[in-house]
Amino acid sequence: MIILKENLEELPNRKRINFINSLSGFKSANLIGTINSNGESNLAIFSSLVHIGADPALIGMVSRPNSVPRHTLENIKDTGVFSINSVSENIYRQAHLTSARIDVSESEFSFTGLTESYSSHSLAPSVKESPMSIYCSLKEVINISSNNTILIIGEVIAVELPEEAVFDDGAVNHNMLETVCVSGLDRYHRVTEIEQLPYAKQG
Amino acid sequence: MIILKENLEELPNRKRINFINSLSGFKSANLIGTINSNGESNLAIFSSLVHIGADPALIGMVSRPNSVPRHTLENIKDTGVFSINSVSENIYRQAHLTSARIDVSESEFSFTGLTESYSSHSLAPSVKESPMSIYCSLKEVINISSNNTILIIGEVIAVELPEEAVFDDGAVNHNMLETVCVSGLDRYHRVTEIEQLPYAKQG
Repeated sequence: MIILKENLEELPNRKRINFINSLSGFKSANLIGTINSNGESNLAIFSSLVHIGADPALIGMVSRPNSVPRHTLENIKDTGVFSINSVSENIYRQAHLTSARIDVSESEFSFTGLTESYSSHSLAPSVKESPMSIYCSLKEVINISSNNTILIIGEVIAVELPEEAVFDDGAVNHNMLETVCVSGLDRYHRVTEIEQLPYAKQG
Repeated sequence: MIILKENLEELPNRKRINFINSLSGFKSANLIGTINSNGESNLAIFSSLVHIGADPALIGMVSRPNSVPRHTLENIKDTGVFSINSVSENIYRQAHLTSARIDVSESEFSFTGLTESYSSHSLAPSVKESPMSIYCSLKEVINISSNNTILIIGEVIAVELPEEAVFDDGAVNHNMLETVCVSGLDRYHRVTEIEQLPYAKQG
């Protein structure tokens, strides 16, 4: 069937949001750990991470300025740092709970039961139960004028993960980490490797 | 183990690229179909799609200005339209081949054996074998000054997919479509739903 722009606009709000959110396919699920200058920590699930570049090592994520994850953006602007924590099969239910609207004075760490952890490499809290934590410093904040969302660009400062979860070619073995992925707003999935394909060349 | 920024810079180029590209977790794989004003079509695999907003329906993707998918960016600027085609299990090998550097005069459609298809809703070619095609018009081109990559924002004009692949709540059933995901540059994966979680609320 074909769904046109006009049909989308006629859909009930919740259905339209679910449909559009699921269009791009499976998305990574990551917990973003931040802290403000009062020492109040925050944890929020994001499914909008995107690889920006390898040299320098840059990761982007999209934030809405006035919605659930807004403390994340404020905290990152405040301290200049954040952590990205992979969501694995053992913590996806707790990770999903971070999308609830709770007061700034309460931390999602205590709300969800995930453990706040600190390393010598960043002010930002990380998630102890997460199999991989990436510590970033804020590099750039870009306004997307089409709908006033924000693209946050972070530079990778340090990565903590099990040594055996790195393939010989340098890639992270997310299957070993049991990293999940998400589709739409709320469907969580298990991932199984089919195969690694060779570098594509002509003729 | 902990890998610091300095360690990353010391890694061989290919290892660093594989590591950084795999940090954000599993990524969606989509084929972007474009055409230039001379009628030359192009097809390129992107793993950098990101949901930008539901109202208006916006999807973003990151493009490097001077690398493999550059024809995509030029064509989108030229005609103002593109298609996003889900990569399913039956076409991921052909989809991966589009990352080979081939001449502008040759189309990745003929190179890979995927079938170029046209609808009345867009000038942009879509992929006949793909289970879902999204037709977009160019909304915004944003320069990411940190590394001179480009964020392309498209507005959804039409979506073509099987009617039975839409859940009652409006979300697309990517498991039914057999949509794959990718980690790093070249590892393709099958995805199985674990569960749908309820809307998170406090207390």
